[in-house]
This record gives sequence, C-alpha cells and structure tokens, in this order.
Amino acid sequence: MLTVEWSYQGGWQRPRIQPFGNLSIHPACSALHYAIQLFEGMKAYRGPDNRVRLFRPELNMNRMLKSALRACLPSFDRAELLECIRKLVEVDQEWVPHSDAASLYIRPTFLGTEPSLGVKKPSQALLYVILSPVGSYFTTGAKPVSLWADSKYIRSWKGGTGDCKMGGNYGASIFAQYEAVDYGCQQVLWLYGDDHQITEVGTMNLFLYWTNEKGEEELATPPLDGIILPGITRQSILELAGKWNLQIPYQQENSLASRLLKELTDIQYGRTPSEWSFLV
Amino acid sequence: MLTVEWSYQGGWQRPRIQPFGNLSIHPACSALHYAIQLFEGMKAYRGPDNRVRLFRPELNMNRMLKSALRACLPSFDRAELLECIRKLVEVDQEWVPHSDAASLYIRPTFLGTEPSLGVKKPSQALLYVILSPVGSYFTTGAKPVSLWADSKYIRSWKGGTGDCKMGGNYGASIFAQYEAVDYGCQQVLWLYGDDHQITEVGTMNLFLYWTNEKGEEELATPPLDGIILPGITRQSILELAGKWNLQIPYQQENSLASRLLKELTDIQYGRTPSEWSFLV
Repeated sequence: MLTVEWSYQGGWQRPRIQPFGNLSIHPACSALHYAIQLFEGMKAYRGPDNRVRLFRPELNMNRMLKSALRACLPSFDRAELLECIRKLVEVDQEWVPHSDAASLYIRPTFLGTEPSLGVKKPSQALLYVILSPVGSYFTTGAKPVSLWADSKYIRSWKGGTGDCKMGGNYGASIFAQYEAVDYGCQQVLWLYGDDHQITEVGTMNLFLYWTNEKGEEELATPPLDGIILPGITRQSILELAGKWNLQIPYQQENSLASRLLKELTDIQYGRTPSEWSFLV
Repeated sequence: MLTVEWSYQGGWQRPRIQPFGNLSIHPACSALHYAIQLFEGMKAYRGPDNRVRLFRPELNMNRMLKSALRACLPSFDRAELLECIRKLVEVDQEWVPHSDAASLYIRPTFLGTEPSLGVKKPSQALLYVILSPVGSYFTTGAKPVSLWADSKYIRSWKGGTGDCKMGGNYGASIFAQYEAVDYGCQQVLWLYGDDHQITEVGTMNLFLYWTNEKGEEELATPPLDGIILPGITRQSILELAGKWNLQIPYQQENSLASRLLKELTDIQYGRTPSEWSFLV
C-alpha cells in the first residue's frame, strides 16, 4: 500500500510504499467522528500485450482534488499522486489479473486525522492507496439489475456534497439499499424533488436510451447540477456517443449498451489504442 | 477508554475499560470509506456535594440507538451501555473538574469496521467511549455569537440523515463554517428551502425569543421535521419553558437566556435536585 502523511506545519511528507497492514488511528480522529474523508475508485487492466493500463486516471485525480477542497482537506499535486499510484501498481503488477473479465481495483483514500474533537479543518491528514483484484461489480455480471424507487430517501441535495466522492454520501445510502433488497430489488433508483426527478442508481450514474417525442433515438443522463456524482464512465459514454452520432450510423442489431461496453472495455484492456489509456 | 466489539457471527463481546490509546484499523474499514459512523456528546458534572452527575443520559442512549439503526449499525441495550459509561466515569472520576465552569466531556462513538470495500451493512462494528475535560464551547463563553447565513449551503434535507448524529452531517458542514469565518462570523446559520427557513446554527439547535404579532412573548424553535438534530438541551429548554409559562410569571429584569442557563446548570451541577440528574 501507498501512504502519504500531511500536517499543517510540515506539509506533505515523503510517500511510502509498504506492506499492507492496519492503520494506527487516534480515537478522536476527525475521519471517524466527522467523516472528514473521501475516496476514489480506479482500475488497472492487463491487455493482450501483457501491459498494464489505467483508464483516464487524470480525471480521478481532478475529482479527488475537488472532493478534498470540499472536505477541507489539503490540496495536493495531481501529477505527483498519479505517479505514486503508477509506481504502486508497477510494484504490485502481478496482482493485475491475467484476464479480460477482471481487473485490479485501486482505492485512493484521504482522511482528516486531526486527533481532537473540535469540528474544524484538520491540521493532520493521511492519504493512502490500497489495491484488490476484482471481477464484475454485480454477481449477475453485465445483465440488467432491478431497481427500487421511493421518494422517501434522498441521496443528495443542492448545497450538499453529492457531487463529491465523500464518505458521508455512502453511509447515508445503505438504509435505503436494504429496503430495496427487502422489496426484491438489487439497487435504489434515487429520486429528487417534488416531481421525483431521476438522479442516480445505487452508487452509479444512470443513462436512459429512448425514442423521444420527435421520434428520434436519444441517450439521456441527468445533468451535473450539483447533486450528481461526475462519473468518469458517465463522461466517457457521453464523449463516445457524441462522436458516434457524428461519424457512425447507429446499428439496430447491436444494443447501444453492448456497443458502449465493448468500446470502453476495448480501450480499458488495450485492444483499441486510445489516448484514454495510461500505461503503467 | 471503554471499547466494545460486535460481529454478525458473535454479537456483542465483553465490554472493556482500558488505558487510552490508538485504535488498530483495517485500511478498508467502512467507517473510513463510507462514513458508517456516529457519535454522541454528553457531560459529567461535579456538584458542590462532590458527587458526579450526568444530565439526562437516557436521552443520549435513545438518540444513539436511533442513529445506529439509520446507519445500519447493530442495535444495543441502552441501559447496559449507560451502565458501562457510568462505570467508565467512575473509574476516571478524578478527571471531572472541581469547578462549576467546566465538566468532563463524554464521547460515545460507534463505527462500522467491516474490513472490505463493498457498500453494505457492516458485519463488524466497534463502539468506544473517550473522555476529556472541557470548558466553554466558545472562547467567548456564554456571550452572543455572530452568525453568517447563506442559502448556498444546506446542512441537511428531508429524506437524509440530519436528524441523526452521524459523522457525514458534520464533515459536509466545515466548508461553510470557514466561509462564515472569512466573513468575520463565528458560526453558520443554516437555511433550508426556497423560503430560507431557519433550521440550526453551526452544530447546535436554535431558539428565537420574540414578541409575536399578538403582542405575546414567545419562545420558538424549528420543529423536529427530519432535518433538525433532536438536541437534549433543546428538549430540556422546551420542557422548562413550558413549565414556567404555567407556573412562574416572566420577570422582565432577567433575560430568558440567562434564566434558562441558570436553571440548566443548577440541575447539571446538582445545585437543584432533579430527576434529570443521573448520579455516577
């Protein structure tokens, strides 16, 4: 794992790659009491050429910095952190699965470690990165998931932190998730406002593909208006779809979802060269 | 400090009172990534009879259980936890200040300690209680604080967790707090909705004391409609004020705030006998 400590007096300390192990944390630590914490989710993929690639990691670094500023955690150099992560994955490269159905999950985490109980900007912080090989997020694989919608619970609201990857957004969501399971569904479809606007699903962004009132095929997703997490897959799908609309006629026989999945995984696993690939 | 571990398989383990020290926490711990965490705040007061008292601790236990259920943390026996806390304060009773301007702050904390990254109900948890002598919350003491109101940030919203003492409510609030300080104020006055309803101040409840349109003196506070933390001081002030309206004519020469402060601290420090006192 990678760890980097920060303090108000000393600034960022030397990054360390060290064996995975428990953290020693003060019982008054502000990450444990006031959720001064955030994370990112990235993956490393092994291609047919046996090289390991990250997918648009600069976007994760941008989002992580945005979350840090919202959480009153210190700023950091995005390029330097990405280089630390690249080095960590290089050291642990044998954990990147030799498979195009699995990958190495990368979890950057950033905590306020102020060792006192005042609700304030932390004077100490810890950034660390842990790794884990993963398969598909859903046990059902790339198959449809059933959704449960109830306006009783709201994931995020304007003036809150729903557009940042802060821990509090997730802990608050679990109760509704278990209600969804009780109703025989896999995930929550989060609604917002008196008119029950569709916002996100569980812990992911949402796209709607439909024929609109003018008879046109249309791909729609909620706008980034402050309550939506700016997903990197979301952004990539929008960019791909925009390009295709201009250059490639839509083929009825392939569903758009399958086509997007193929294009994204072709890039992620290095079967299609792309500037979105970042070689480790 | 007091620690009690829980696991899905083994249930609650034996409570332990042990020397204060760092916690050993798995880097994937769900309290650090998804803010599956909550806390309470209580105080122990030393009276002129040298006895140590808690103030309505059953209400803290009730609120803590409510927070736990909302956070998908396990249920617990409130009377047993209160007995553990009583015993901890008894062991550490020399830390209760010999003063009626200070007290021993008691911080029960409850964390999900699931050691894996899935967003789910934790199968492991840790409840602990730490102590610290404290003076006045504000360096200005029981004097007026300056408030900064801006509808840009919202503390809590209907369908969220603002009525529970979960960490995520606090981490999300710090950014606005520093904007308040930048504008020369001490605390944020949190607003809600298009009509800018007054809800809370910083990390405390709010009362308004005014002469209403009918010329009557009135004490008002926002209702517990899901976005307000149900404060124990809030409840106690409402109960005292209700009793006084019935039995005691309002004396113009004493401000209501001073009178409430005197009555509450008389009970807390044991100068006035009360069923709200809990002897350690």
